[in-house]
Amino acid sequence: MDQASARDVSAPARIAPAGEGIGQEELALAARNHGLPLEALRYEVTPPGLHYVLVHYDIPAADADGWRLTVGGRVDTPLSLDLDALRAFPAVTHRVTMECAGNGRALLSPRPVSQPWLVEAVGTADWTGVPLGLVLDRAGVRPDAVEAVFTGADHGVERGVEQDYRRSLPLPYAAADGSGVLIAYAMNGLPLPPQHGYPLRLVVPGWYGMAHVKWLREITLVDAPFTGFQQSAAYRFRWSADESNDPGEPVTRIAPRALMAPPGFPDFMSRTRVVHPGPVRLRGRAWSGHGAVAQVEVSADDGLTWARAELAAPDPHPWAWQAWSCVWTAVPGRHTLTVRATDAGGRTQPLEQPWNLGGFGNNLVQRVPVLCVAAP
Amino acid sequence: MDQASARDVSAPARIAPAGEGIGQEELALAARNHGLPLEALRYEVTPPGLHYVLVHYDIPAADADGWRLTVGGRVDTPLSLDLDALRAFPAVTHRVTMECAGNGRALLSPRPVSQPWLVEAVGTADWTGVPLGLVLDRAGVRPDAVEAVFTGADHGVERGVEQDYRRSLPLPYAAADGSGVLIAYAMNGLPLPPQHGYPLRLVVPGWYGMAHVKWLREITLVDAPFTGFQQSAAYRFRWSADESNDPGEPVTRIAPRALMAPPGFPDFMSRTRVVHPGPVRLRGRAWSGHGAVAQVEVSADDGLTWARAELAAPDPHPWAWQAWSCVWTAVPGRHTLTVRATDAGGRTQPLEQPWNLGGFGNNLVQRVPVLCVAAP
Repeated sequence: MDQASARDVSAPARIAPAGEGIGQEELALAARNHGLPLEALRYEVTPPGLHYVLVHYDIPAADADGWRLTVGGRVDTPLSLDLDALRAFPAVTHRVTMECAGNGRALLSPRPVSQPWLVEAVGTADWTGVPLGLVLDRAGVRPDAVEAVFTGADHGVERGVEQDYRRSLPLPYAAADGSGVLIAYAMNGLPLPPQHGYPLRLVVPGWYGMAHVKWLREITLVDAPFTGFQQSAAYRFRWSADESNDPGEPVTRIAPRALMAPPGFPDFMSRTRVVHPGPVRLRGRAWSGHGAVAQVEVSADDGLTWARAELAAPDPHPWAWQAWSCVWTAVPGRHTLTVRATDAGGRTQPLEQPWNLGGFGNNLVQRVPVLCVAAP
Repeated sequence: MDQASARDVSAPARIAPAGEGIGQEELALAARNHGLPLEALRYEVTPPGLHYVLVHYDIPAADADGWRLTVGGRVDTPLSLDLDALRAFPAVTHRVTMECAGNGRALLSPRPVSQPWLVEAVGTADWTGVPLGLVLDRAGVRPDAVEAVFTGADHGVERGVEQDYRRSLPLPYAAADGSGVLIAYAMNGLPLPPQHGYPLRLVVPGWYGMAHVKWLREITLVDAPFTGFQQSAAYRFRWSADESNDPGEPVTRIAPRALMAPPGFPDFMSRTRVVHPGPVRLRGRAWSGHGAVAQVEVSADDGLTWARAELAAPDPHPWAWQAWSCVWTAVPGRHTLTVRATDAGGRTQPLEQPWNLGGFGNNLVQRVPVLCVAAP
């Protein structure tokens, strides 16, 4: 064991063949992380504890009093900011819908082995903090800086690499006012909960969750694109396991998705929904990281025919989900309800799985099996 | 389909044979419910969103303004109490460790198919509300009442039975001051979160979670033991699938358990812990629903030899977990850390699984694989 290294407990990425059940390692992730129970789509702002959570390593023990955010690298004036210093900047609040890039992974066949989400890795919160651009302005970003690299306090091993969680964003995008990128210290008006990055996290409206670095402790301006693990190895759309020949495409903005709060009531174990005959108001939320949702359609015959749902206007929260609803008249029998969103740019949701090695960005339409039975 | 009923989507209980992976139905439960990330054992009171959650059906939409708790059945004065009426009673706060009766189920072999917990279905909160006995006194319990039946607003189908979630407690136990049974309207000083029973839940210190009825809307005093589904069919220790010949034993108080916050840092996927050589302070919590924990022992060789840990005194919160710690000197190589609690009544944790059909009360000792490697 003299030669033992952290790589010995860190296997390469793996694809589970069709039919292989969820294993103990995936279950260990599923038991500690969690999604949004879909009935909680009823809340415009997700209540505490219902917003999805994905923690790569451990939730760090954090002491807000001693916490410092450093800003360094290609800047004129390196900074070390405590919480009071950050609160002294002008504060803004953005309502943001956040979704895990791996949402939908466990529905893929074959299944990439990682956190096994079905469709529920989403949530919406009001995030309060300092616009990133204000902090970078104070530090004075040098003209040769091309990216900002964000380091969290969470530390672990992933695919053989011991690391702090670290991601970058390009400039000038990250600092632009219109991007809405925040250094957040409050969620829904309260200090961040530990699992959401206490005391500081990045919020990057419209991007999948991996960009919103939690437990933020360091910002480094760099003069060449960042090539760390979470940027260049993980979180890439890739179709070949040969990374040298397939660098893949970066995972960035959230693909459009609509979800339905399943109607009626569930069976505990199968989760199949039961409704009684008659008109049923179907409700849910829809979002896209590329802009407003333009249309939501619902199908009661598993995608053969579609009808347009009523859709709430996107303002005044351009980065938050939009409510939709429609009436479905239930008749006795088995049904599969389906819903899909199309955004203003014409992007929509596929009816067949968009497979890739990491299981990212799977916005395949949600399918909700429902049994309609006569009322007792 | 004219004959269709809710039973058509509600299969009988099933045992998965050894080697069968977690299925999509178990995963659907694991994705919406969640446990305590074990590093959160560092908190004496579990922060919002980290306390375990198990919801049988859906989280009901609840309007606190219109909410009424009725008290009826074998009472002199039926009551209908709104939140203000409950807040007008003297309030008490109890710090209570709560654990799901199914905690440990997914470690059993063969595995009962249900919510697939590993060891993390636990949490501790400060619950504030009205002692149940005060409310029952106001209603005037008649001498022939033997149990109080508690009905929640959550509705669904389970094993073919359409039902509101409903459980009972025996009298005079439920009403006795020393039992600590509460009608709670606050958790850690704030209104209950939706997933923890907003606006009202029962809290039954020392009992597994199934007794703490959430979204409480009705209390009915009855003159014969309650035989509803959650009392007589589910939540029984049973070893034969023939329920008529094996009524089983009721699941009631929490068996002793100690958990360790895994040391070092994890590999993302395998969750194996990595530590560097030298002294490592191991920390965790221990509890028993039968009384104070008297002893916590730790083993670094998978249970061959044990050493006593330091244990915090149980007061002043007799229903909450107790902190423990000890120092382990890590040397390079692979290790399996184990911990076990023994309560004041001499109950302890088994080294072999205590199997039963429902997968209840599995307090098998936690095993934490650790790799010790030289620091880089």
